[in-house]
Amino acid sequence: MGYFDKRYHPPGTAPGTFTANEGLAQSPMSLHLLDYSPEHIHVQANARVADCQPFIPQESVTWLHVAGHPSADQIAELGQLFNLHALALEDVLNSGQRPKIEPFADQLFIVMNIPIMQAGKVSIEQISFFLGKNFLLSFCRLDISLFDMILKRLQDGASRIRCRQPDFLLYSLLDVVIDSGFPVLENFGIQLEDVEENILDKAGPDTLETIHILKRELILLRRMLWPQREVINQILRDDHPLIRDDSHVYFRDCYDHTIQIMDLLETYRDMTGSMLDVYLSSVSNRMNEIMRVLTVISTIFIPLTFIVGVYGMNFDRSAGGWNMPELGWSFGYPLVWGVMLLIAAGLLYVFRRRGWL
Amino acid sequence: MGYFDKRYHPPGTAPGTFTANEGLAQSPMSLHLLDYSPEHIHVQANARVADCQPFIPQESVTWLHVAGHPSADQIAELGQLFNLHALALEDVLNSGQRPKIEPFADQLFIVMNIPIMQAGKVSIEQISFFLGKNFLLSFCRLDISLFDMILKRLQDGASRIRCRQPDFLLYSLLDVVIDSGFPVLENFGIQLEDVEENILDKAGPDTLETIHILKRELILLRRMLWPQREVINQILRDDHPLIRDDSHVYFRDCYDHTIQIMDLLETYRDMTGSMLDVYLSSVSNRMNEIMRVLTVISTIFIPLTFIVGVYGMNFDRSAGGWNMPELGWSFGYPLVWGVMLLIAAGLLYVFRRRGWL
Amino acid sequence: MGYFDKRYHPPGTAPGTFTANEGLAQSPMSLHLLDYSPEHIHVQANARVADCQPFIPQESVTWLHVAGHPSADQIAELGQLFNLHALALEDVLNSGQRPKIEPFADQLFIVMNIPIMQAGKVSIEQISFFLGKNFLLSFCRLDISLFDMILKRLQDGASRIRCRQPDFLLYSLLDVVIDSGFPVLENFGIQLEDVEENILDKAGPDTLETIHILKRELILLRRMLWPQREVINQILRDDHPLIRDDSHVYFRDCYDHTIQIMDLLETYRDMTGSMLDVYLSSVSNRMNEIMRVLTVISTIFIPLTFIVGVYGMNFDRSAGGWNMPELGWSFGYPLVWGVMLLIAAGLLYVFRRRGWL
Amino acid sequence: MGYFDKRYHPPGTAPGTFTANEGLAQSPMSLHLLDYSPEHIHVQANARVADCQPFIPQESVTWLHVAGHPSADQIAELGQLFNLHALALEDVLNSGQRPKIEPFADQLFIVMNIPIMQAGKVSIEQISFFLGKNFLLSFCRLDISLFDMILKRLQDGASRIRCRQPDFLLYSLLDVVIDSGFPVLENFGIQLEDVEENILDKAGPDTLETIHILKRELILLRRMLWPQREVINQILRDDHPLIRDDSHVYFRDCYDHTIQIMDLLETYRDMTGSMLDVYLSSVSNRMNEIMRVLTVISTIFIPLTFIVGVYGMNFDRSAGGWNMPELGWSFGYPLVWGVMLLIAAGLLYVFRRRGWL
Amino acid sequence: MGYFDKRYHPPGTAPGTFTANEGLAQSPMSLHLLDYSPEHIHVQANARVADCQPFIPQESVTWLHVAGHPSADQIAELGQLFNLHALALEDVLNSGQRPKIEPFADQLFIVMNIPIMQAGKVSIEQISFFLGKNFLLSFCRLDISLFDMILKRLQDGASRIRCRQPDFLLYSLLDVVIDSGFPVLENFGIQLEDVEENILDKAGPDTLETIHILKRELILLRRMLWPQREVINQILRDDHPLIRDDSHVYFRDCYDHTIQIMDLLETYRDMTGSMLDVYLSSVSNRMNEIMRVLTVISTIFIPLTFIVGVYGMNFDRSAGGWNMPELGWSFGYPLVWGVMLLIAAGLLYVFRRRGWL
Repeated sequence: MGYFDKRYHPPGTAPGTFTANEGLAQSPMSLHLLDYSPEHIHVQANARVADCQPFIPQESVTWLHVAGHPSADQIAELGQLFNLHALALEDVLNSGQRPKIEPFADQLFIVMNIPIMQAGKVSIEQISFFLGKNFLLSFCRLDISLFDMILKRLQDGASRIRCRQPDFLLYSLLDVVIDSGFPVLENFGIQLEDVEENILDKAGPDTLETIHILKRELILLRRMLWPQREVINQILRDDHPLIRDDSHVYFRDCYDHTIQIMDLLETYRDMTGSMLDVYLSSVSNRMNEIMRVLTVISTIFIPLTFIVGVYGMNFDRSAGGWNMPELGWSFGYPLVWGVMLLIAAGLLYVFRRRGWL
Repeated sequence: MGYFDKRYHPPGTAPGTFTANEGLAQSPMSLHLLDYSPEHIHVQANARVADCQPFIPQESVTWLHVAGHPSADQIAELGQLFNLHALALEDVLNSGQRPKIEPFADQLFIVMNIPIMQAGKVSIEQISFFLGKNFLLSFCRLDISLFDMILKRLQDGASRIRCRQPDFLLYSLLDVVIDSGFPVLENFGIQLEDVEENILDKAGPDTLETIHILKRELILLRRMLWPQREVINQILRDDHPLIRDDSHVYFRDCYDHTIQIMDLLETYRDMTGSMLDVYLSSVSNRMNEIMRVLTVISTIFIPLTFIVGVYGMNFDRSAGGWNMPELGWSFGYPLVWGVMLLIAAGLLYVFRRRGWL
Repeated sequence: MGYFDKRYHPPGTAPGTFTANEGLAQSPMSLHLLDYSPEHIHVQANARVADCQPFIPQESVTWLHVAGHPSADQIAELGQLFNLHALALEDVLNSGQRPKIEPFADQLFIVMNIPIMQAGKVSIEQISFFLGKNFLLSFCRLDISLFDMILKRLQDGASRIRCRQPDFLLYSLLDVVIDSGFPVLENFGIQLEDVEENILDKAGPDTLETIHILKRELILLRRMLWPQREVINQILRDDHPLIRDDSHVYFRDCYDHTIQIMDLLETYRDMTGSMLDVYLSSVSNRMNEIMRVLTVISTIFIPLTFIVGVYGMNFDRSAGGWNMPELGWSFGYPLVWGVMLLIAAGLLYVFRRRGWL
Repeated sequence: MGYFDKRYHPPGTAPGTFTANEGLAQSPMSLHLLDYSPEHIHVQANARVADCQPFIPQESVTWLHVAGHPSADQIAELGQLFNLHALALEDVLNSGQRPKIEPFADQLFIVMNIPIMQAGKVSIEQISFFLGKNFLLSFCRLDISLFDMILKRLQDGASRIRCRQPDFLLYSLLDVVIDSGFPVLENFGIQLEDVEENILDKAGPDTLETIHILKRELILLRRMLWPQREVINQILRDDHPLIRDDSHVYFRDCYDHTIQIMDLLETYRDMTGSMLDVYLSSVSNRMNEIMRVLTVISTIFIPLTFIVGVYGMNFDRSAGGWNMPELGWSFGYPLVWGVMLLIAAGLLYVFRRRGWL
Repeated sequence: MGYFDKRYHPPGTAPGTFTANEGLAQSPMSLHLLDYSPEHIHVQANARVADCQPFIPQESVTWLHVAGHPSADQIAELGQLFNLHALALEDVLNSGQRPKIEPFADQLFIVMNIPIMQAGKVSIEQISFFLGKNFLLSFCRLDISLFDMILKRLQDGASRIRCRQPDFLLYSLLDVVIDSGFPVLENFGIQLEDVEENILDKAGPDTLETIHILKRELILLRRMLWPQREVINQILRDDHPLIRDDSHVYFRDCYDHTIQIMDLLETYRDMTGSMLDVYLSSVSNRMNEIMRVLTVISTIFIPLTFIVGVYGMNFDRSAGGWNMPELGWSFGYPLVWGVMLLIAAGLLYVFRRRGWL
């Protein structure tokens, strides 16, 4: 995740302008069309925009998943067909949006962020929904396989999802989007436990890097996911006619999950802060230990080296009896050793008693 | 307590799906059935689900405690018997939930976390309640012995608990759940006082570890207990018909206890933060003390060692009168000692006056 | 003040159970009874519970101060006489409560904490009030001397306190309770100014300890006093019939004082945090100063010691002209001294120019 | 500014007691009386309390500024004349109040704090206002010169202030009180910029002291000024009849200024926090630099000193061919020098390549 | 950006006083006048105030952009022509205002701050708007080129902006003002990523400076932009008749952008805090590494230097057999070398095993 992931028009661009993201032309739009009622289900992969037309006036639920990056023309065509607001469509194109909900007269526009784990790395994809009276549109760079479980449940004619209105489909998709946070957070939890296990004994510069990366990703993730709570809350609070009363219990379940995810994110952030403190203390403790022992060793040898230096002086003993008479004593050498051993032992004793060694 | 303790379905699973926790099959479900009115009490340990049936239509209060992990079938059977909502039952199975309250038309579903102290370690168990018109269901991994005190009070026909509706039983159980926080926090308080006593004089790396573990457990405990306040508050605020007016004063007492527990948790967190600061300062102070003394010792001996080195040089005194004439003085040696003692004394004096020693 | 000061029943105890605090039996209950109207005042120290009975049906204001620890029997007797709620009485016994207000039909139950300064140490005492139509009960471990000023004012028949209802008496006592925070905070302010004066020049390990203790006491004090604001605010907000309208202006004054106390507490906490930072910087600055000077001294002598070491080598000058010819020069020795002095001066110059000395 | 600047009565003093501040008797009360209408203005410096009497029943606006410390008698006399509430007058005497607003039936009592810059030092003075139907009283230790600009504007018969009611005069004075914060904050801004300029290169212990003092003053200033926002907000929110509707736009302007001042205070506090961090890092960086260079120098000389020590040993070469044959080589001495230079160069090369020098 | 950028009158100045900013006389006022309806557009650069007069009574939309610093006279002339409130005009002149909205009876006064990137430096310009029934006034130090995109869109007769009322023009300009934050934040994001890349390996004192400057600019930027959210929110919340209902959806889009900008600012502040921590740890880690290696080197040589010192002593071997007999051994010298190598190897082994090297 980068720090600045917001795509924006140059300030002053007219509202509702669609600019194709040239850099993204490599993943062209692909449509996945479903139409279902309790009695039937129609699935059409790689549909064209025109294929949707016949289903719009019908009572059955139509779900169109737009994967990849639609061109400006394609988005305009879709907008006209489903009567979508230009400002909303602009937000679909300019990805990097904050999760939000925008109620229109006969539609509900919702932007969410879905966290994806790939090869141990977390990334965020924007996913946008248009909920109409009898249709649901979903836009995402990723294709429909994201919702494989939902497709499977739709095949079952007796399932609750087949028997209900598009608001239940919206709930089902939002549930997938939100619950995708759990495996990501589980992974964070495991990494944090790993760090914690090593932090007191085996902490090294790579520990610092790991903590920093975890902290950074948690900050960025929090920014992307935090407003989801507000979005679901607004669905529950506002009495939009498209959200039926008997779906409220399901959205409330969604809401609980967004709170759980935020709780975990906050807890993990607290923990990384705490771990950084412990890491620093632990590194500093170990460093202090080393320096203390080494300095004590030096301090013991320094007076000894002075003493042997003394008896390395070349004073002329013949010049007078006061000049280094010790050198002439027959037990001078062992005496010096004795004195030196005594000093060393004394210092060791003092240092140990003071707890310095 | 681990960092990630939430059990969750793969994203996209149909709402209300019951998956048996295979890893948990070793603690099978056991039912404890009580039925009481002011006049009678019927207790049946190790009951079967079917045993509850006759008591449901009766006016008397029925309490069923479900210990251990029920299988998906058993949970479905219970759900049908007591008419429980599938989403709520899913939350019972997927433990690691955030405490919450979910009002249904004729039932109240409550999830709480109970902190348990075992062998000095804190763990958290989820406990779920279904309150109906004339029954209360409680689900927990732990068995009924948790509520031994309540069982004893129920035996007494004159006790308030026997004479009142299931909402009073709910209050009594919630009171046990919440008050279980007090012994846990008392234990934390004792540990914090232990740490504090030693922090200035005898702080070592294990102190750091203790503070870190305390901080970590307080963070995790806070996450699990914080929402309990909101749950009790919602019982008081919402006018759910199952909570009778004359029970409000008891729930308000419960609410006070949740606030007291949160207050203590916050205070303890503040204290661990403060202790970490003091620990670091204290360790650094002690280290500085050591380094200062050792460095002063070295600094005193370094010029002395230089001096004895000077008179260890082998300049040829016969080559000229300027070459180390001191060596030939008859009092050269004692003179050098004198100079060295003066230097040492001078340095000691300076260092002491500057407060370095 | 300890970290855990809450007395609590074992979880599961029936609500309204009175357990005598055995450890506290040494300070037995003593009653101080006052009954007054504008026309008369009756004072009875060391009263018995039964002595209160005749005053209850009368219109005059009755104030009963219960000092020390009443036994379970005594508390039950008082409860029956004044018709007090069992849950409230339980809170009176289980001291360490959070300040709170509990409105009953015809009574108001208030718990407050009064900070006491004794021999430079701060402690907290719980004080509980029951306000009835024509009586006020106060419970506290400390005796009536706490309210000496009020007793004196009650003696004066013309005083406002004699002419008004028990809510004014309650206000007067609460005012004493809250204002007791001022001398305590003044003492903290003085200590903080003391610390601040010394922090830059004379900071030592005891400064650290002082800051830590101040911080700790401020955290604990804040926990005990913070909810008082809410209690007074609730008296003002709720229109309880026992609080007459013309007393509001007085309670508002009380409320201002609770805010001022909280303001001061928060400011002091900010200051201790700031002081800890400055203390650490200041200690580290002084340490750095010492280490720098000592290290510079060592660094100057190290090359000199090397040089004198060179001329202490025993190469056989007779083995060839390249072997230490300097030793044979007639000015070798002074030359070496000159070189060494030059090096020392050069290093000193460099270090001083770089600002290292 | 001191930490504890609240003057308070001993807990238990009767509300509305006036105690003269003995320590403050040296600045006796002086009254400045103005009475004006669009047609006339009457100014009387050094007025007596009795001088005000004739103006009270008149329709014209009367402004009485009470400078210095009134005695208890004087305050009582004023209170009786203008019918002021005793609790409010107590707050006038007990300076060190938190800014607040107290609405009475026919009066508005306002306490504010005015920050004063004198000789580079900030101090806070309490200023209290009583707004009546046709009068305004202001109490402050400082004399009327504080409001010189207002006096000048009052002289101009065509000015807006002369044509309006006392609420506009109140606004004008409050505007002076609040705007006095701007020069104080400008001064803080300049000091912060000064600190910032030096912090990376020339930071010394005095920088630490400056930052600490700035932080401390900002904390104390914030405590004194923060509630002013709430006071002005309350004037705007409550529909007190004494504040006319057409004055709202002016008070709203005042409110904006209080917010700007708070914004600046918060920003400055953030900056001092940030600066302390940078200061610490910067000092530590410089210290590290010094220690590194010095230690590298020592480390280079230590092996060299060892080598010269080796050849200063006195082994008896005549005892065997293995005993220090190097001493007898004809190029031994230059060889040793060569080896030593190589070692020194090698170490320098290694250290430099690792970026240690 | 400086710390104190608020221009203010001396406290006590009459409200609505216009003082020319003398220091700013160099950029004189220049007017840019536009008048348009769906059918026509009239553009007049370098207009005079009087030129606006004919357009005011007409139904068409009039936009007057006032660039540079108007003199006190010019501002008064404009104020009279468009009937602007004096307090609002004062805020136009006293730049450095906090963004705010002030509703007047028939006008809306809005102050915003526009962040400008010039040569990698961020600066803030105040921009003020007066929205009337059929006109919009904008005041800014910068000239109209700021709104070049809007001018271009106005040329297109079919564009939405030409067909709508001045509230849509206001939205379009506010959109430019707010969206100008995106390139600025993008630049911050890039700088943060730069810092982050180098922070673990190549962090130096300049990294510290960069982090500090980023942090400082983010704090100041936050202060200037934070209230914009509230301004737009107030436009949406208050039902001012000048803001038509069908413009709400556009202002809501604006509001989303202000939230996104605040989100990014907060995230960046979090990141700089985190980076400072990592920087400090990283610098300290590297320093520790160096010191450890150097100290280990010293510690290995210190005992060796002691040993060679021992055999440099001059004890008189002829005085007795105990005096340094080692010197006379035929293998003494190689033995000493052997011992020294053993010691060095032993120490190296110990240090390496303990992970100190």
